[in-house]
Amino acid sequence: MITLASDFGTPYPAAMKGVLLGRTDARLVDVGHDFPRQDVRATAFWLREVLPYFPAATHLVVVDPGVGTDRAALVVEAGGHAFVAPDNGVVIPTVRELAGDEFAVYEVEYEGTASNTFHGRDVFAPAAADVHDAPAVTAVDRVAPADEYVDLSFPDPEVGEGTATGEVLVVDGFGNVVTNVPGEFLDGLDRARVDGEVAPVGRSYAAVDPGGRVVTVGSHGNVELAVNRGRGDGAFGLGVGDAVRVERA
Amino acid sequence: MITLASDFGTPYPAAMKGVLLGRTDARLVDVGHDFPRQDVRATAFWLREVLPYFPAATHLVVVDPGVGTDRAALVVEAGGHAFVAPDNGVVIPTVRELAGDEFAVYEVEYEGTASNTFHGRDVFAPAAADVHDAPAVTAVDRVAPADEYVDLSFPDPEVGEGTATGEVLVVDGFGNVVTNVPGEFLDGLDRARVDGEVAPVGRSYAAVDPGGRVVTVGSHGNVELAVNRGRGDGAFGLGVGDAVRVERA
Amino acid sequence: MITLASDFGTPYPAAMKGVLLGRTDARLVDVGHDFPRQDVRATAFWLREVLPYFPAATHLVVVDPGVGTDRAALVVEAGGHAFVAPDNGVVIPTVRELAGDEFAVYEVEYEGTASNTFHGRDVFAPAAADVHDAPAVTAVDRVAPADEYVDLSFPDPEVGEGTATGEVLVVDGFGNVVTNVPGEFLDGLDRARVDGEVAPVGRSYAAVDPGGRVVTVGSHGNVELAVNRGRGDGAFGLGVGDAVRVERA
Repeated sequence: MITLASDFGTPYPAAMKGVLLGRTDARLVDVGHDFPRQDVRATAFWLREVLPYFPAATHLVVVDPGVGTDRAALVVEAGGHAFVAPDNGVVIPTVRELAGDEFAVYEVEYEGTASNTFHGRDVFAPAAADVHDAPAVTAVDRVAPADEYVDLSFPDPEVGEGTATGEVLVVDGFGNVVTNVPGEFLDGLDRARVDGEVAPVGRSYAAVDPGGRVVTVGSHGNVELAVNRGRGDGAFGLGVGDAVRVERA
Repeated sequence: MITLASDFGTPYPAAMKGVLLGRTDARLVDVGHDFPRQDVRATAFWLREVLPYFPAATHLVVVDPGVGTDRAALVVEAGGHAFVAPDNGVVIPTVRELAGDEFAVYEVEYEGTASNTFHGRDVFAPAAADVHDAPAVTAVDRVAPADEYVDLSFPDPEVGEGTATGEVLVVDGFGNVVTNVPGEFLDGLDRARVDGEVAPVGRSYAAVDPGGRVVTVGSHGNVELAVNRGRGDGAFGLGVGDAVRVERA
Repeated sequence: MITLASDFGTPYPAAMKGVLLGRTDARLVDVGHDFPRQDVRATAFWLREVLPYFPAATHLVVVDPGVGTDRAALVVEAGGHAFVAPDNGVVIPTVRELAGDEFAVYEVEYEGTASNTFHGRDVFAPAAADVHDAPAVTAVDRVAPADEYVDLSFPDPEVGEGTATGEVLVVDGFGNVVTNVPGEFLDGLDRARVDGEVAPVGRSYAAVDPGGRVVTVGSHGNVELAVNRGRGDGAFGLGVGDAVRVERA
């Protein structure tokens, strides 16, 4: 099984599918092709939320603002999965989620074999097909252990007795504001103060009336700021990277 | 075969796919993940337009504004198909289209096994995989006949000799305005009066010049208000839920 | 293998998938369903960029502003592939890319068998399933050699010693402006004059600082006007169909 994730929209992912299907009989599964454009950090967050639910698979991930530079093309083995992606950290949080520090990083040599603007088609898709079909990553031509790789991690919040100070990691398509504050901070609370304003704490969006603000714990386990059937980003006035202070109230 | 329909966009559907593929070898088919956000009624309409064209399948449908409340999780058997969805009526029009009143409704017990915000991944996907692979719905753990379910139907129009009064059910992505007035009302007409203004009746959008308004019969069999290569919602000044009066002219 | 391409968004492609899966066991592959709405020319360009990367397949293509008129439904055989599409030229550039002038065009008879507004479901999907499963196109009921078909080609640029005058063929979702000027025109250049203003020539978007304009060669081999991590259409003030003059500088 090969999964595909990119920020390509329509139609570039189809060229990757064509290349894959020309080289392998693997089942293809779209993870999504509308990841935030050229946003490595947000994509890294979302991939960590979804890829660990897959059985062992080869994951082709192409969010690649550095295409055409000398950034490396990587294969990462972790927990029975293989990730084929540019060396910009986009798969690292998923890798650590699956396997902690127990992973192996390989580099795909591609000098002179590819266009300068579409490595998804010319470098990553062929590598993903070959990795999928090979008995081991090291059996694939042009692949060798990497000396180094670009790491990526999300900032840790400061969690005190009554106050947690964190930041907005991403805003999802519904407008839900995902922070890095751990959900446990809300344990036993009926309401919380967010950047000074009190809002109810609820087990779900529907814990408040439609249009009402709610502080909840998302499926990712972090504190999430939402509006029932509305958008939390507007209501809380928060966007990606903004600092956020949550207090017991 | 398991089909997937949701309002999740990117990337949440991938978590459902991962869970499904971890439990079953079934073929997965995306129906679409851009159904109108949290809009049960519009999704119910569109599903009735597309799902009946499938051969017997398990249909996983997650448009779920009530997630985290005590709304039930259902399995509905109808006409050889199985539907796994929240108990909000979203699959009922499709079920009736396929099987009239000949359907069976089951409830999936999930208390305490799921996150509060992502039942698509934690409740519905596992149930869909199990229903697909089981010899019968009743053979699946945690599934039992339901005592009741939320019904959903679309309003009937008032159709008289020369006038039909109905309402706008949905507006599609092209801006075509879909009413609940049956297409037969236009039989033999060359033009019709819509909310007082005359417009030509055509067999297709292209029956009028580009930019021109046309009253036609959509693929769903209802009267549709459109603009050839343009948007009918703007030209007719109509949106979802608006009353609409069509007269012979 | 049957690929699907359309401008239908959600949910109409699912009706085509249902019809296909009711008639054939073929693998289905989404090329994309967000091609520019009713834009035959742009879709023709993008299909030529992606479909040639597929192994031999049946390609179902439905961008069909003429639905409901008497435009023909075609099957085109070229280079081992079969294309099932409306007779508006949308697949012709791909066909010529694959097979030059060595292709065969057939017509699908559908009079009286279809709705007037959704031939993707009622005409093209059944034909694609039948073509896929048949030993030869001519073995399919209702299919016969066509006398004529609608051609489609892209304008040729005027390329002189120091100046190339062309036009904008399409703008992709990233805002990259794709011209019809061949990439070779930039050979050996460090910068070029675009409509009178000098911009650097780079091997990739990342050849310039973020936010900077760059003249590059896209994966399609044509001159492309871009902004690193930004939008080229805004920066260069160019849209589809605009004339563009590129000079050595």
